[in-house]
Amino acid sequence: MSFKHKDLTSIASLTADEIMLILETADSFKEVTGREIKKVPALRGRTVVNLFFEPSTRTRTSFELAAKRLSADVINFSPSSSSVVKGETLLDTALNIEAMRADIIVLRHSSAGAAETLARGVKASVINAGDGWHEHPSQALLDLFTLREKKLEFNGLKVAIVGDIAHSRVARSDMYALTKLGAEVRVVGPPTMMPAAIDRLGVKVFYDLDAALRDVDVIIMLRLQLERQGKALFPTIREYSRLYCLTPERVRLAKQGVVIMHPGPINRGVEISPEVADSFSPAILDQVTNGVAVRMGILYLLSGGNA
Amino acid sequence: MSFKHKDLTSIASLTADEIMLILETADSFKEVTGREIKKVPALRGRTVVNLFFEPSTRTRTSFELAAKRLSADVINFSPSSSSVVKGETLLDTALNIEAMRADIIVLRHSSAGAAETLARGVKASVINAGDGWHEHPSQALLDLFTLREKKLEFNGLKVAIVGDIAHSRVARSDMYALTKLGAEVRVVGPPTMMPAAIDRLGVKVFYDLDAALRDVDVIIMLRLQLERQGKALFPTIREYSRLYCLTPERVRLAKQGVVIMHPGPINRGVEISPEVADSFSPAILDQVTNGVAVRMGILYLLSGGNA
Amino acid sequence: MSFKHKDLTSIASLTADEIMLILETADSFKEVTGREIKKVPALRGRTVVNLFFEPSTRTRTSFELAAKRLSADVINFSPSSSSVVKGETLLDTALNIEAMRADIIVLRHSSAGAAETLARGVKASVINAGDGWHEHPSQALLDLFTLREKKLEFNGLKVAIVGDIAHSRVARSDMYALTKLGAEVRVVGPPTMMPAAIDRLGVKVFYDLDAALRDVDVIIMLRLQLERQGKALFPTIREYSRLYCLTPERVRLAKQGVVIMHPGPINRGVEISPEVADSFSPAILDQVTNGVAVRMGILYLLSGGNA
Repeated sequence: MSFKHKDLTSIASLTADEIMLILETADSFKEVTGREIKKVPALRGRTVVNLFFEPSTRTRTSFELAAKRLSADVINFSPSSSSVVKGETLLDTALNIEAMRADIIVLRHSSAGAAETLARGVKASVINAGDGWHEHPSQALLDLFTLREKKLEFNGLKVAIVGDIAHSRVARSDMYALTKLGAEVRVVGPPTMMPAAIDRLGVKVFYDLDAALRDVDVIIMLRLQLERQGKALFPTIREYSRLYCLTPERVRLAKQGVVIMHPGPINRGVEISPEVADSFSPAILDQVTNGVAVRMGILYLLSGGNA
Repeated sequence: MSFKHKDLTSIASLTADEIMLILETADSFKEVTGREIKKVPALRGRTVVNLFFEPSTRTRTSFELAAKRLSADVINFSPSSSSVVKGETLLDTALNIEAMRADIIVLRHSSAGAAETLARGVKASVINAGDGWHEHPSQALLDLFTLREKKLEFNGLKVAIVGDIAHSRVARSDMYALTKLGAEVRVVGPPTMMPAAIDRLGVKVFYDLDAALRDVDVIIMLRLQLERQGKALFPTIREYSRLYCLTPERVRLAKQGVVIMHPGPINRGVEISPEVADSFSPAILDQVTNGVAVRMGILYLLSGGNA
Repeated sequence: MSFKHKDLTSIASLTADEIMLILETADSFKEVTGREIKKVPALRGRTVVNLFFEPSTRTRTSFELAAKRLSADVINFSPSSSSVVKGETLLDTALNIEAMRADIIVLRHSSAGAAETLARGVKASVINAGDGWHEHPSQALLDLFTLREKKLEFNGLKVAIVGDIAHSRVARSDMYALTKLGAEVRVVGPPTMMPAAIDRLGVKVFYDLDAALRDVDVIIMLRLQLERQGKALFPTIREYSRLYCLTPERVRLAKQGVVIMHPGPINRGVEISPEVADSFSPAILDQVTNGVAVRMGILYLLSGGNA
């Protein structure tokens, strides 16, 4: 089975089968990253360009390693030192990159929809590595990969996503992915952090964390953007924590063996208590490891590889 | 036939035959960059260092891709974070790079003559990727490559170069290259933007764009450095545009099928009107694509390859 | 013989035999870096991450080239643009890097002991590329390599180290390495630049440069950190130079053919006079060349290679 899309700009545009195809393709690359010689020739002679308009060493490095382990040539294109300062538009920049015969452009951009706009404008494949508050599909896919690796069945899986839902592209991609695969998704946070059209996404909205956690298999904690505090989404961090910090008592409301996930780095004592961070083994580092495998799978499929 | 120079610091130092040798060598690499597997082992185990004292993502990326597609190891040496801040001179920095066994140093520097000075001081090959207002030879070579690809004969070719001739290393390199190959070169711009010794370069000077464009085969538009406006080379941008912006009416003064080139990115409405940018297909992206092939050719010849 | 350590965090933790093993391993890589094709497949498919919290283009580039010439995949992880700004700790950052299956982390950090702390916290190998005023083991090893290449015997070798001993990780690593191999080490500088526990390091302390240089085989000049002047370690640079600048007259106090070393770049006229810099051929560039070979040796041994 091959992947029919030129680009990966969102989870919303994928079918459940396509999501599973990516996860299964990533399986074999997970095996590769566990070897001493973590390298396969699949993308030899292909060019992958990381075009990051927002700094993100983690995601950029994950894509860079994924591409290098597939033997691709990788270029990091940093907009600060680029001709963007000369007033060039995103599309101009990308057309130039494409003219150098880039096969895949990995884009991070602060505007929702940037990846889709770009995908329409270039012949190269575009991977959305985060566009504003819209989507971050590879992060959702690595979350799913991590759950599947823990032998969880998506159909009927109860998942709580906790935090600033409105301003999280990770939450949005996770919601799309999990609901497509038949999971029951509960989103939890203060009303100021719920997006307007949340009803249409097929998820259950909770404002009370204790109620939301009851009986869930998985808790996905979002990272609180502390720098956003001034925007008055909540009165104080202490108040936020009292209501939404994941404590040992709260973990015990969920199913035994509940899987706790977080995109990292944790604000200890803000969204996750130190006791939970240290004793309940959040799957954070598994997510990081799986991120490279999932991105290898995405790069491979977009390059025309068959699963 | 092999290339006799250790370095490529200027077009002025090349013969017409040497220019043609580079273009012909680039032909075969253009074919490589059109393949799915854009990689040849020619420079495996060689070290190319991009030493850029001025930021330039485009040119740096073009050289980086060229070197990687030849299988060279590439290092980007950024002066801001380097020991240059410790008061080290250009030559000290380069001697250190050479001591690490760099084979080729690609230099961009704000001082005219920097590449030639460096070439005399190191045993490594030096490629001038732009030195002050002096030369930018690989840009001129990719301009020539682009014209040749469009089946134009250099001998007798009528070419207008339009803009700030005095402060353009691209214009200088283009003038040398085109006149050496027998083209008739016309330079056009306000008197404040003409270099002092322009008479000695074998080109015709025009101050009136309409007169200059009459019957030309090629128009090379330079990018207006808007940040230089304060230096009073012209009263206002609007005044500049009125006199020197390439409009559809002006394009029609040239030969039918005239080739329009620009080093990118365009200041739309300043040096090129939006109509011309959109309807007359300036060869900008062809130039970008050809830049990688031409730089592969240069790296290959300086490494001792035979054409 | 194989190397028994997971990490290389200090010279203090090595035996004389282990030091010699690294030097002998580096010998064969010195030969590789002298070839036209400077590349061996020893670390193909391994991942080396340069994690530099202090900028250092030279050392970072030396490690990057060493890793690339061993065919490793190399990632440069720059903390300024990383999630360190999000309040992540060194260990968090490193655990993330390790989760991406990095095999070797090359760490530069401003805190003494950072590399040892990290080495205890991760399963990946850690190489200390400078930690505060503590150690910089690869620099000491390349110094030793350079002396050995000049056919000097370490046992009984008389070496003067001149400058700000207290604030030099290079001096500290050199002292450990040279005394372990049986050399007689003299440290020279003003009392304000001597570390408190210098007596315990098995070296002779001098405050008078002329006395210290008498009859030495090797002079290791340290770089004066001019930016530290405000901290009142000496009244003025001129006063420092009068007492501690290496002049031709002073060189003549040492043995004939004395080897002069410096980590570069020289403050000409401050710690080394222009005459000495130009006429006595300090081994600076040999040190740079040997640095790549020594780092290839270190990377190779830590990857399980046998000498």
